[in-house]
Amino acid sequence: MSSTSARRLNASNINPHVREAKYAVRGELAVKSEEYRAKIAKGDTADLPFSQVVSANIGNPQQLDQKPITFFRQVLSLLENPQLLDHEDVLLGSLDYKPDVIEKARWLLSKAGSVGAYSASNGVPAIRQSIADFLERRDGFPASESDIYLSAGASSGVNTLLHIICANEKTGILVPIPQYPLYTASLSVLNATCVPYYLDEHKNWGTDLSAIKKACAEAKASGVDVRAIVIINPGNPTGASLSESDIRDIIEFAREERLVLMADEVYQTNVFIGEFVSFKKVLRTLQKESPGKYDGMELASLHSVSKGMVGECGHRGGYFELVGFDQAVQAEIYKFVSITLCAPVIGQCLVELMVNPPREGDPSYALYKKEYDGIFEGLKERAYALWRAFEKMEGVECGEPQGSMYLFPTIKVPAKAAEAARAEGRTPDEFYSMRLLEATGVCVVPGSGFGQKEGSLHFRTTFLAPGTEWVGSIVKFHEEFMNKYK
Amino acid sequence: MSSTSARRLNASNINPHVREAKYAVRGELAVKSEEYRAKIAKGDTADLPFSQVVSANIGNPQQLDQKPITFFRQVLSLLENPQLLDHEDVLLGSLDYKPDVIEKARWLLSKAGSVGAYSASNGVPAIRQSIADFLERRDGFPASESDIYLSAGASSGVNTLLHIICANEKTGILVPIPQYPLYTASLSVLNATCVPYYLDEHKNWGTDLSAIKKACAEAKASGVDVRAIVIINPGNPTGASLSESDIRDIIEFAREERLVLMADEVYQTNVFIGEFVSFKKVLRTLQKESPGKYDGMELASLHSVSKGMVGECGHRGGYFELVGFDQAVQAEIYKFVSITLCAPVIGQCLVELMVNPPREGDPSYALYKKEYDGIFEGLKERAYALWRAFEKMEGVECGEPQGSMYLFPTIKVPAKAAEAARAEGRTPDEFYSMRLLEATGVCVVPGSGFGQKEGSLHFRTTFLAPGTEWVGSIVKFHEEFMNKYK
Repeated sequence: MSSTSARRLNASNINPHVREAKYAVRGELAVKSEEYRAKIAKGDTADLPFSQVVSANIGNPQQLDQKPITFFRQVLSLLENPQLLDHEDVLLGSLDYKPDVIEKARWLLSKAGSVGAYSASNGVPAIRQSIADFLERRDGFPASESDIYLSAGASSGVNTLLHIICANEKTGILVPIPQYPLYTASLSVLNATCVPYYLDEHKNWGTDLSAIKKACAEAKASGVDVRAIVIINPGNPTGASLSESDIRDIIEFAREERLVLMADEVYQTNVFIGEFVSFKKVLRTLQKESPGKYDGMELASLHSVSKGMVGECGHRGGYFELVGFDQAVQAEIYKFVSITLCAPVIGQCLVELMVNPPREGDPSYALYKKEYDGIFEGLKERAYALWRAFEKMEGVECGEPQGSMYLFPTIKVPAKAAEAARAEGRTPDEFYSMRLLEATGVCVVPGSGFGQKEGSLHFRTTFLAPGTEWVGSIVKFHEEFMNKYK
Repeated sequence: MSSTSARRLNASNINPHVREAKYAVRGELAVKSEEYRAKIAKGDTADLPFSQVVSANIGNPQQLDQKPITFFRQVLSLLENPQLLDHEDVLLGSLDYKPDVIEKARWLLSKAGSVGAYSASNGVPAIRQSIADFLERRDGFPASESDIYLSAGASSGVNTLLHIICANEKTGILVPIPQYPLYTASLSVLNATCVPYYLDEHKNWGTDLSAIKKACAEAKASGVDVRAIVIINPGNPTGASLSESDIRDIIEFAREERLVLMADEVYQTNVFIGEFVSFKKVLRTLQKESPGKYDGMELASLHSVSKGMVGECGHRGGYFELVGFDQAVQAEIYKFVSITLCAPVIGQCLVELMVNPPREGDPSYALYKKEYDGIFEGLKERAYALWRAFEKMEGVECGEPQGSMYLFPTIKVPAKAAEAARAEGRTPDEFYSMRLLEATGVCVVPGSGFGQKEGSLHFRTTFLAPGTEWVGSIVKFHEEFMNKYK
């Protein structure tokens, strides 16, 4: 047989649904920013107009300035090396570990065994029980460990849930726009139908029930089997917290349309304005108020160690709780997660620490509280500093910071900039963001990566980076950009 | 609107491809064994004929007796709590950490940053470089960090690769039978076509090229687009190591048929008989011997920290290397893995430690070597003890232990047992395994969970559990079972 010089796989014959998926958070700009970072690391900065890369494209607190919480990491160090527990005197003495650190580590080792062993597919039973207890305290309603599934970050939980819900290409899932692109990308890969509903920028990016109803009705009219609605609360990229009354409206709508509720609540502690109310709490309240009326409603809510003041993205810890799901469906979910065995066990232990941190009176409480509050205040300060800078910029409009880790300003660029963008085959927001990166080393994500209303332009930036220099560099770039294309 | 009492999701309307997936390693038997374990933990053993559950269903060394390697865990403890590095004197003194532990931790922290931060989607660049260097040393051929992708265990890598390769339901992937059910389950979920080829039990479960050719030809004749061949080497559940000549034959066949090679090499250090030869090494050798002939061949090979003497399943660390893949396809792989952000960073660091363990002359080497060899010898001893027990059992046939973590004996059960199984709606091997669990607390996986030739029966058991008592309980059960159904 003659030699085969052509490869079997090429970009046009691989899985078309993977090819169609878009994920801008780590797209072209992020790749370019990493190239700059590598260049700088080599000391090769002669032709760069900046001396550092600021990765404002991704909510990755510990890549920037955020320090891990000491209590968490002390416990994890003991889980990784339990031999240290043979030296309690050293731990408590020169290493300044507190007794509750040791106690917690011993408890986790007694429940999880070695962190190098697979756990049950849905997670360590004792940790699932701790999460259920946490949810009961948070919401004032019962929760059961058998409804909790530990996952490798919330992303993996979303992947599981969408795999179960999406039966074929007619399955429709209502997804907010703008949204974190995990949802649209996962639906592309699954070849299911994303049914976008627009959030209302003029109401601080709150939900607009009439827009949701319209999107749902149109999809149904075109033959889509709309089965679920995704809500990201607090919002990503918007930071908006929904009020209890907004949540009631959404649940009522979901009841009428028989939709599964998927509540992505990973930013539940990143709230500056308003307060976080869980979908579970509101659903259970409605069920109590109107017995029977909300029976059979299904809710999946997701949480993670990656965000909030924990900020432990790299550990890939998270969980979801199922409310009202059929047992036979839960059995299929269990089987599905079994195929990849279990979530990282050390990440599961971090979930335990997140839901059961030191309490008042515990030896580690004072330091924990100081660190936790310090991170919260630091994020808030940075958010406001960035917002005030945006306020001063011509053609930029941005709502007051509300929460999450992001600002999502609207930008208006001159017509000449839009033309120049077209000439490059980019959208104007992509063009703007690319020029920003090239000029300042600041990497943001163009609004088109999250979805935005036709004709509007945005970008998403985290407010995690320390200092004000990078903010100043954005202001300066923006002025020059606007002047150049005026 | 009236109340909706029916749930939206039920077992018959969810994703049918998830429903069809089978994953017996954590199926009914595993669930029942966990129920027994929970009962025993509560002290509720009055009605049980055994006092402990032995999870021989899954290769989970640290759940049983295997201790983690000290060097690895000492480094990880410093990565989790870098503040410990401020106390070098204590570490080197009373805690008995060696200088190379500290050095390695500092190096990893300098390269990965906080283990709580997301890494690049394909993994920490320096770790990818270390893996490439390891592969060069192992195979004697160049490897590039840009072709390495860190993953959450090998399972996640397999999931990624199959997602890319499978374009639609006509895509066929050749999968060995018996096989680790990750492959069949993933192909079910993806709604692609599994093209099974049978391994040859009479040749110690080696590959039978004529069987592979036949399976491929039949699939092609029925319109299947056969694109790839999976090889698990050393085998799971069989333990068989392929010879270089077997591998040459498979590569030659893949060349003729233009198939992507997927080499699952996670058991590469678990070899008692024969030696491990990588597909990469053989492919590169063939390419050197016959310039041009093997151009354009594509190989993906997978490895993991879960198996071997590392045995760190719970950390979910692994990687795959791509050889000869198109750059545009690699870009799609990068995008796909980006959607779930990155593999657990502490697991990535374990991969680094696995490929760069202490070397002769390093302060930690003596202990590392002692632990590593001890684990290897312990596994071998247990494998032989179990095998000798099988040798004595009527109606059980088992090849000599070759490697991996499993034995996969053939069992012949009396006709009456097959009848009793049918009456319960089980296959005879499921029936046998269920009775074994109920009588002894030993959980194995029926051969049907991996696939077996029509009319043959097997079960897979790990040889990880310590002691001989559990082996004795299997022997006793088997005798009683055979007598009962004689």
